[in-house]
Amino acid sequence: MSSESANENCLGYAARDPSGVLSEYKFSRRCLGIDDISIKITHCGVCYADVIWARNKHGDSKYPLVPGHEIAGIVKEVGSNVHRFKVGDHIGVGTYVNSCRDCEYCNEGFEVHCVKGSVYTFNGVDTDGTITKGGYSSHIVVHERYCFKIPDNYPLASAAPLLCAGITVYAPMKRHKMNQPGKSLGVIGLGGLGHMAVKFGKAFGLHVTVFSTSVSKKEEALSQLGADKFVVSSDQEQMTALVNSLDFLIDTASGDHPFDPYMALLKTGGTLVLVGFPSEVKFSPASLNLGMKTISGSLTGGTKDTQEMINFCAAHEIHPMIEIIPIQYATEALERLVKKDVKYRFVIDIENSLK
Amino acid sequence: MSSESANENCLGYAARDPSGVLSEYKFSRRCLGIDDISIKITHCGVCYADVIWARNKHGDSKYPLVPGHEIAGIVKEVGSNVHRFKVGDHIGVGTYVNSCRDCEYCNEGFEVHCVKGSVYTFNGVDTDGTITKGGYSSHIVVHERYCFKIPDNYPLASAAPLLCAGITVYAPMKRHKMNQPGKSLGVIGLGGLGHMAVKFGKAFGLHVTVFSTSVSKKEEALSQLGADKFVVSSDQEQMTALVNSLDFLIDTASGDHPFDPYMALLKTGGTLVLVGFPSEVKFSPASLNLGMKTISGSLTGGTKDTQEMINFCAAHEIHPMIEIIPIQYATEALERLVKKDVKYRFVIDIENSLK
Repeated sequence: MSSESANENCLGYAARDPSGVLSEYKFSRRCLGIDDISIKITHCGVCYADVIWARNKHGDSKYPLVPGHEIAGIVKEVGSNVHRFKVGDHIGVGTYVNSCRDCEYCNEGFEVHCVKGSVYTFNGVDTDGTITKGGYSSHIVVHERYCFKIPDNYPLASAAPLLCAGITVYAPMKRHKMNQPGKSLGVIGLGGLGHMAVKFGKAFGLHVTVFSTSVSKKEEALSQLGADKFVVSSDQEQMTALVNSLDFLIDTASGDHPFDPYMALLKTGGTLVLVGFPSEVKFSPASLNLGMKTISGSLTGGTKDTQEMINFCAAHEIHPMIEIIPIQYATEALERLVKKDVKYRFVIDIENSLK
Repeated sequence: MSSESANENCLGYAARDPSGVLSEYKFSRRCLGIDDISIKITHCGVCYADVIWARNKHGDSKYPLVPGHEIAGIVKEVGSNVHRFKVGDHIGVGTYVNSCRDCEYCNEGFEVHCVKGSVYTFNGVDTDGTITKGGYSSHIVVHERYCFKIPDNYPLASAAPLLCAGITVYAPMKRHKMNQPGKSLGVIGLGGLGHMAVKFGKAFGLHVTVFSTSVSKKEEALSQLGADKFVVSSDQEQMTALVNSLDFLIDTASGDHPFDPYMALLKTGGTLVLVGFPSEVKFSPASLNLGMKTISGSLTGGTKDTQEMINFCAAHEIHPMIEIIPIQYATEALERLVKKDVKYRFVIDIENSLK
């Protein structure tokens, strides 16, 4: 056995090429630093980002590529300088695992916007030059700062999707004051992000309307997710009836869609938050100017917001709707994600299937 | 003399058809109501809106059409219920002269966003069904609520452009907290609105960069308007050097232009305020999402902000740069406005030329 293979202390699932087919892959995690936590991964959520990079959609994938940035697990070892966690604690890791920790954004808890660039949890180049490998793996070593406490009473499987889908909608909802009871929220698109936006909206005391292209989601949106209203976005009559009626919109749809009809639904001074990535955003200036409306973008959230969001979910018993799968099903899960055939998040049971 | 002609108590200049050529026109103003103020108009600014409706660009012009919504003058009579003004006071009227005075927006001083629609100062349909006629005229009768005090030490000619150009940039600058000394502001376009944005920016203590398509405006922007920096927007090198450097942008350009290069100049969390009307607004979602940036629209301002802005201009000796013209020059002024051949606002000397 070579010294290299002796160092292969981690078992994961990796894509080897743009086919995105995942298979077993052994690699090494770094040794525990004084500020590091070694985490036994129990669960990892399946995010659309996993598809993008497994299949090299952005042309920057570095193979073998271990996806996964919705990581939940248990602390198995802590560095000498770690104070917030102890062995056995439930813990989460999200979309980034490093940053400069010294710029204005890091200092304000917006590490994802670090001026030197935050290091993404997988397919990122870490400060030591190594390529990061994600949560489709047995364990991970992460600097304490980028780890989050999962309360003991909150299921680890439910916690995983909070680390990307949850924080991506929670952070802008808080930033744009969408937590004012009695106000009205429209949620565009009902996928992993959208269904969390509905749940947060209801927990914030908002009147929530779901906009979807598919009437098939109506029953579930109303009865299971607790939305107050469901509108098929192609229904002109329903759309017209809602003109100037919403305080907020959160747009989670990644498919291309017109913006003017949605902007028209906002009240004067209303805000649409974009978290999806359509191919372009296009609208008439009148849609923005006439009612002093706002479109604002967002990308996941900082460490402070993330911990707050997890605590909020535990306190309000907010759980994502998940389908738990074994790691061996991951390739098919990515394929189903592309087909939007999931309600609403796959979570890989790493602990019981990756051995 | 017919009773109709006897009622023609007001002399104005009107466009008669989409040629937009203006000529003398006699018409009647309403009798003074208990809440009304009758104003002897001394000055009226020339706004691009005058071109739009004089030439029927929106297809809804009602001829004969008397333009003008940057009105300054002197109180000549007040209704029995008027308390804020007395005969002889200097007074201004802006882009709207009526609203429901009973909705949430009116109650908050955002009358321009009245749910029943504010009544524009010209070419609008007033609550009594009459078509409003603007400030290219000898006098006007306006409900007290839509009138503003001009401090005695502030020239009436300078006051006129504040009522549209001034408030249109001041209101969103205040709303988006662009009045924090030391922050950086980019002003896109250097016309009637843009040159006021530079002046407000400097008065707020901002570092102001002007973006223009024409290098010919550089000297003036820096030496006369007091901007700190001037960038020709087609200069890739200069634009690239400013990436992630600005807290705010105010976009006053009405011509079509790409938005992505400007969004890139904003820091994380930065805001672009749009006050112009290009044919469309189009950008990549990444331009918005990656740095949680914001695009927000605005349309003039409410009565509260308008009075505050006038007082601010008087206190800080902020004066628009104007070219004073006689009413007989108005048709040519509109033509020059279309050609952007004005620095930076025409103001009609109504008092001395309309007789």
